[in-house]
Amino acid sequence: MLIKERHVLDEILNPRSIAVVGASPDPNKAGYHFFKGLVDLKFDGAVYPINLNGSDVLGFKGYRSLNDVPTPIDYVTVAIPAYRVPKIIEDCVAKGVKIVHIFTSGFSETGEADRIELEAQIAEIARAGNVRVIGPNCMGIYHPKIGLSNFGVFRSKESGSVGFISQSGGNTGDFGRMGLVRGLRFSKLVSYGNASDLDSTDFMEYFAWDSETKIICAYIEGVKDGRRFAKVLKETAMAKPVVILKGGLTKAGTRAVSSHTGVLAGSDAIWTALFNQTGAIQVESLREMIDLALAFSYMSRPNGRRVGIVGIGGGASVAVADFCEKAGLIVPRFTEGTMARLEKITPVAGTSVKNPVDSPVGHRVAVPEYEETLRLVASDPQIDLLIVHLTIDWRIQTPEDRKNLHDLTEVLIKNKKSLGKPVAAVLRSCQSLHSWQVFLEEQNRCSEGGIPVYLTLEDAANAVSKLIQYYEFREKVT
Amino acid sequence: MLIKERHVLDEILNPRSIAVVGASPDPNKAGYHFFKGLVDLKFDGAVYPINLNGSDVLGFKGYRSLNDVPTPIDYVTVAIPAYRVPKIIEDCVAKGVKIVHIFTSGFSETGEADRIELEAQIAEIARAGNVRVIGPNCMGIYHPKIGLSNFGVFRSKESGSVGFISQSGGNTGDFGRMGLVRGLRFSKLVSYGNASDLDSTDFMEYFAWDSETKIICAYIEGVKDGRRFAKVLKETAMAKPVVILKGGLTKAGTRAVSSHTGVLAGSDAIWTALFNQTGAIQVESLREMIDLALAFSYMSRPNGRRVGIVGIGGGASVAVADFCEKAGLIVPRFTEGTMARLEKITPVAGTSVKNPVDSPVGHRVAVPEYEETLRLVASDPQIDLLIVHLTIDWRIQTPEDRKNLHDLTEVLIKNKKSLGKPVAAVLRSCQSLHSWQVFLEEQNRCSEGGIPVYLTLEDAANAVSKLIQYYEFREKVT
Repeated sequence: MLIKERHVLDEILNPRSIAVVGASPDPNKAGYHFFKGLVDLKFDGAVYPINLNGSDVLGFKGYRSLNDVPTPIDYVTVAIPAYRVPKIIEDCVAKGVKIVHIFTSGFSETGEADRIELEAQIAEIARAGNVRVIGPNCMGIYHPKIGLSNFGVFRSKESGSVGFISQSGGNTGDFGRMGLVRGLRFSKLVSYGNASDLDSTDFMEYFAWDSETKIICAYIEGVKDGRRFAKVLKETAMAKPVVILKGGLTKAGTRAVSSHTGVLAGSDAIWTALFNQTGAIQVESLREMIDLALAFSYMSRPNGRRVGIVGIGGGASVAVADFCEKAGLIVPRFTEGTMARLEKITPVAGTSVKNPVDSPVGHRVAVPEYEETLRLVASDPQIDLLIVHLTIDWRIQTPEDRKNLHDLTEVLIKNKKSLGKPVAAVLRSCQSLHSWQVFLEEQNRCSEGGIPVYLTLEDAANAVSKLIQYYEFREKVT
Repeated sequence: MLIKERHVLDEILNPRSIAVVGASPDPNKAGYHFFKGLVDLKFDGAVYPINLNGSDVLGFKGYRSLNDVPTPIDYVTVAIPAYRVPKIIEDCVAKGVKIVHIFTSGFSETGEADRIELEAQIAEIARAGNVRVIGPNCMGIYHPKIGLSNFGVFRSKESGSVGFISQSGGNTGDFGRMGLVRGLRFSKLVSYGNASDLDSTDFMEYFAWDSETKIICAYIEGVKDGRRFAKVLKETAMAKPVVILKGGLTKAGTRAVSSHTGVLAGSDAIWTALFNQTGAIQVESLREMIDLALAFSYMSRPNGRRVGIVGIGGGASVAVADFCEKAGLIVPRFTEGTMARLEKITPVAGTSVKNPVDSPVGHRVAVPEYEETLRLVASDPQIDLLIVHLTIDWRIQTPEDRKNLHDLTEVLIKNKKSLGKPVAAVLRSCQSLHSWQVFLEEQNRCSEGGIPVYLTLEDAANAVSKLIQYYEFREKVT
């Protein structure tokens, strides 16, 4: 069912030359930032600034029009007032441009008749001239591997396995920035706005084909062709995890969607049915989407829902047990053998060995015993996966405490493979600046070591449960 | 119904002298940290280190036993092995100590018969000798105003209106640390552990009486006398907001509770009924508890559930509208007059004036128009309260952007009173170290200006909704 030959979008998302119409030497203009994004990221191809005066930008020779550029142009970003856009699209057709990204807003999303008409006019010029359109009213593409960044904020060519599709430019920026901080790496981020041509369905189909993309995340306000979307989503979700945040499922949200991208949001019932039928994973926020993408990025598929919990602190142990069961995970008592072995290395006072394991609370934790605890829990036949939690704040008062924390995460990273079962970690922080700095250091070490890190116990329980649910669905329907 | 004369606990929580049994010059001992907490915070009274060798600690004269101290002792912290505790309690009785806080663990929470017996023995000695007990297996008290800190981590004498009661020492540390970072200030934090004598009910009753405490938060695993607890909770919640995190509402959570503090957790159904009957507010996590405490600390009571939303970004506007409606708030269209006036100051492209207000996305926001927008929304007769959201990350790339962000929050703070309706703010951050630093700076300015700041749109919607629900309940039953 999925397309085998090169997907049509693959060529147009891998341009060899890009022009920015509206690129300006003035940092107060959006066009400046779109051009600077390409320059900063050292785009793997030619870049051309186009503006009314033909001014140079950031040392690159400027042109008055696309037609003046002597070489072919694959990709054009448009950041000029709405009424001037149709002429530029005609220029794109004349120049043989493959794809045009229209940042400019003020089209169908305003709900005003003349602006809806203007968008239709642009779409028609492009369609007739064989130019594909991303937008209008969107941020465009971040494709780190080739240095294509329509987002001034993304300055890394490091790529990864998470693809993101979004009707909202702001959400694309937020997801990308938060995701990078939390240890995600991206294949492509796509902000497609009003979808006058290319829609979520097109990009979903492309990501299904794209071997660089292993996990697909999407923020969707509405779709143009519900039947085609449902078909593509179903096929895609059977091949790769698809995580969707649907915006506008309430009355007020629907009204906001209509002002934002001018689409029909669709009812809650329709979307619920769609999620149930396709196995796509519904999330409530971008933060939850990142949690899911982390789980799929770093955890292999657990054999079941039985979680072994290792942590420090009685209150936290109660909380994580409650969160896991509420999320639909199972927290079984360990086998007698495991508990007997754990008892030998765990002091009796202020601890528990029954699952959750609650290790001594003191400032410093004995590293060899901690390592042995992880091994014992992972090898218990009652257990399918591990959730490990540590509190940053008890371990940052002195250099010795800090070293102890480092040693504990090192044990996790070092043993990840030999434990033989998937592991999720929770590093809890009070988020004072110092605590947060340590969190980021330890989190980055863990992600590089292939362990997803969660901010709260509930986030970990929820992400792990939905990860398992996805695989269970796929198994059930095949 | 509530006690009018001085509550018995008020005297024992305001000691004039404290001894730490187990205080040691060795920083690896818990007793060192308990003593250091008092010294660092400059406790408003006498402090005495007691240890087997009579060693001085941190320059304070040491004693071998409580009986050797020449002056009266009101409060004793015990941090020595469990088997030695009974003798110390006898010493406390002999010395006329009012209250003993037993940090030591390894009693009833272990589930072992001899240790359960040891705890009963201690409780009996204390009861017969008229000494009240906090614990065992707990962190004790943080009472900032008098510099009483059993928690080495709390180093501020700045006090506030939030009281916290917790069966878990770890949760007390986490709640206190996170709460301080987020802008809460405390009257007293109490960690009471196994509750061999003083229980959540006693502290709840005290906080109901205590005029310094205006908002009561509690982490509870189980209660000894359910009937008395229900009665006290009902009376207390009618007088002050009571926010409760109940630990152990699942099978696994109940097992963890039994290992942690050795109490009976009680069924989910019983607790649900209790919340419904008393108007106490149930939360799912400490993080949510902090969100509620912020709302009650800084927001006055809204007249209704109709929220006006002002923010920047279409995706965020859709999300906040969805979250508000899902949380049971109402997001009405503004009156025509308000929309007409908003339209005059809001560009048409990429914005909305219908509620949520979605202001222009650009790097910098025009401050006078922003101020006018807030005033227009606040004066709309359809609106009972405001949720205002800003994204840190779009406004920290340059000093000018940073100043713009500062100016926007300044507008909020300056107009808080004149707006005439309660305001909650959301400052969204990708949580990179730089972004987080700016978040903390802006958040602290807002809290000092009396505006609660939330990390996410959903957190704000949830907290505001539960705030309103509390007042609605109180109105309904009186």
